[in-house]
Amino acid sequence: MTTVAILQREDWSLLDAQQREQLLRRPAQQTLATTSTAVRAILDDVRSDGDAAVRALGARFDGVALDDFAVAADEFCAAVTGLPEALRNAIDEAADRIAGFHQAGMTAPYGIDTAPGVYCERVLRPIRRVGLYVPAGSAPLPSTALMLGVPAQLAGCPDVVLCTPPRRDGSADPSVLYAAQRCGITRVFKIGGAQAIAAMAFGTQRVPRCDKLFGPGNAYVTEAKRQVALADDGAAIDMPAGPSEVLVIADTGANPAFVAADLLSQAEHGPDSQAILLSNDDTLIAAVSEHLAEQLAALPRAAIARQALQSSRAIRVATIAQALEISNRYAPEHLILAVRDARAWLPQVQAAGSVFLGDWAPEALGDYCSGTNHVLPTSGAARYSGGLNVASFQVAITVQEVQPQGIAAIGPCAVELATAEGLDAHRLAVALRLQAVAA
Amino acid sequence: MTTVAILQREDWSLLDAQQREQLLRRPAQQTLATTSTAVRAILDDVRSDGDAAVRALGARFDGVALDDFAVAADEFCAAVTGLPEALRNAIDEAADRIAGFHQAGMTAPYGIDTAPGVYCERVLRPIRRVGLYVPAGSAPLPSTALMLGVPAQLAGCPDVVLCTPPRRDGSADPSVLYAAQRCGITRVFKIGGAQAIAAMAFGTQRVPRCDKLFGPGNAYVTEAKRQVALADDGAAIDMPAGPSEVLVIADTGANPAFVAADLLSQAEHGPDSQAILLSNDDTLIAAVSEHLAEQLAALPRAAIARQALQSSRAIRVATIAQALEISNRYAPEHLILAVRDARAWLPQVQAAGSVFLGDWAPEALGDYCSGTNHVLPTSGAARYSGGLNVASFQVAITVQEVQPQGIAAIGPCAVELATAEGLDAHRLAVALRLQAVAA
Repeated sequence: MTTVAILQREDWSLLDAQQREQLLRRPAQQTLATTSTAVRAILDDVRSDGDAAVRALGARFDGVALDDFAVAADEFCAAVTGLPEALRNAIDEAADRIAGFHQAGMTAPYGIDTAPGVYCERVLRPIRRVGLYVPAGSAPLPSTALMLGVPAQLAGCPDVVLCTPPRRDGSADPSVLYAAQRCGITRVFKIGGAQAIAAMAFGTQRVPRCDKLFGPGNAYVTEAKRQVALADDGAAIDMPAGPSEVLVIADTGANPAFVAADLLSQAEHGPDSQAILLSNDDTLIAAVSEHLAEQLAALPRAAIARQALQSSRAIRVATIAQALEISNRYAPEHLILAVRDARAWLPQVQAAGSVFLGDWAPEALGDYCSGTNHVLPTSGAARYSGGLNVASFQVAITVQEVQPQGIAAIGPCAVELATAEGLDAHRLAVALRLQAVAA
Repeated sequence: MTTVAILQREDWSLLDAQQREQLLRRPAQQTLATTSTAVRAILDDVRSDGDAAVRALGARFDGVALDDFAVAADEFCAAVTGLPEALRNAIDEAADRIAGFHQAGMTAPYGIDTAPGVYCERVLRPIRRVGLYVPAGSAPLPSTALMLGVPAQLAGCPDVVLCTPPRRDGSADPSVLYAAQRCGITRVFKIGGAQAIAAMAFGTQRVPRCDKLFGPGNAYVTEAKRQVALADDGAAIDMPAGPSEVLVIADTGANPAFVAADLLSQAEHGPDSQAILLSNDDTLIAAVSEHLAEQLAALPRAAIARQALQSSRAIRVATIAQALEISNRYAPEHLILAVRDARAWLPQVQAAGSVFLGDWAPEALGDYCSGTNHVLPTSGAARYSGGLNVASFQVAITVQEVQPQGIAAIGPCAVELATAEGLDAHRLAVALRLQAVAA
């Protein structure tokens, strides 16, 4: 059966504890020492030589040496007017829906009196300068520009910088420019790879130094983000980004063609993507395998998908409840519940980046235009963190405003605790004020 | 004038750009290579030998070899009954106020229809297993147990583990136990330092492996948290913790004794703490210096504070507005606005961990019992992140539920974008469903 070769099939009930752990282990993501060293050299170059280094590295890696890598007003203009109307409308439509969902989830400032004369609050400020990276490996990614740009705009970040690799002719992809402009971003630099991350983290003559960097990228970009996040003079980053993943739970009633297409959507992202199918139905698993083979044959990116499928799995489970348990253990970036009454299973989901309920919710909708963000935790990080949202672009600051009545009310509690902790100046700072209030 | 020696005085207007940058630079926090190597060895030990390693390391570093480092029920019981009533009440009172403020700031789940037949939502789940570290260097820190335990409990974390160093007699500090129990925590281990972080990150026979670790600590603990956060088999951490800092902005009307006590509260934390005073009034600066000298003389932890004051500064500014600009650039962990009409200045605060408004709000109140959290961003991280809150103990998961009507409504947008991005399987996953809906 040729389909066995496409998707390795396992039966959960036949595995011991160690085999189960092994099966759910992600393909090893060792950053090659050579990548790490190369990135370190790029970072050092940009840190010391600024724009000149960025220019030289662009010539070397992107095959184009730009005198000025800032996108000028006329290039923006041409992008807006030159883009096919259907694509422009799709970008607008996606931007509106992403904005709607993200705005509804914005954290509000709040404040309460925690004691008479003690008002505590949490206020929000936009991060002053953020740097967005929009990759363009095999194709431009206007959707990523929206997923980063929309929440940055909603947060009110006063200074948003976007880097994206130049095309061979030295221009930026017009769909990325259009998406950027749709989010109010006017500072776009045609810089790619690790040098883009370095430029935004350290600053150059042209590229301003950013407080926090966002966005996906290849192994070099990921390693560069890791290194600048650790550097004393670097920048914060949104999250460590691993290869993309989907876990599909399908029952007897699922549509095998849909499931196969969803697995392939993941697999075509890159050779290190992982797609996992869990089902309680052997017939469904077999049917999905057949559709996989058929759809693969017609897929332009079949070579990439085929590689990814080598580390993908179909796992036969006893029940859908068991599938949910396995999913929580794996903590997938994307979880598709292609089961009857999918909503009823949602309370069982404990760890996942984004969940797709039912047969009509392909992951591709979340990637583009349902409204949720597609920058999500990978590599099991969904056990402890969520995807990008407006709060990722904000700083929350707590505030306490205390009246004389307030220090009288809660000061003695602080004195007692400071004494227990042996922090005498803490005690004194409160005691002096208590004396003044009493006087 | 002896006071000059206590707090270095600078005039902002007399400095050039480079000197200003230099002045606001934190004292270098180079982790010694020896610390890093020692911590790596401890982590390796615990990873491979589990409890036996923890026991041996405890004997070496804490001077006590415990057969069983889990706190038993009777030790909890004794802590509760044996604690002085005043301290018990203070812990209760602080816990209530912290809970009140944190609960009011909890994120709510939400959902909206982003298109007809497309319902998107964000749901929240507690992180399954969290590990809290409560240090006990020179003194026990029940307040830290509350600052970590209260939000963990509000988040509903089903499994909370707490590690704290044993005392010489092998017992845990009763005030820490009382605070833990007050937060519903019953799994307390008497393990300190880097070995505690390793035990919670990797798991041992007795200590369960945790998804995310929280809490402050010394240089070894901080380095251990950094290393486990980078390890593939490690755990997530709350935030990188640097030395504690305060920046006080004081005007002519400020009380110099209060300001001096606030600076000393910071300085007594540790020799690497930093306290900065900004004022537009020379007389005030001189008066604060005098009070500093006087209060220092009576301070039990004067030796520590004196060291910290060596890297502290009094900076003469032209105006309070200028002081706010400097503060935003420094992005202090704690900001005290000891100025008239302090609230009017709050909108100017762009980056700070926690803000204290007016003469009656010493930092010590926030450290203990105003209700805000005392685990806050240090080393300038307040430019891009906030302090601990309930969301730090939760995972946010986005969900999309799509009806046939929904895919018909937004599917074409996804098809357009997938085509532009050259992701054909993405296109197919949507197109197949659109065909099925149309049929």
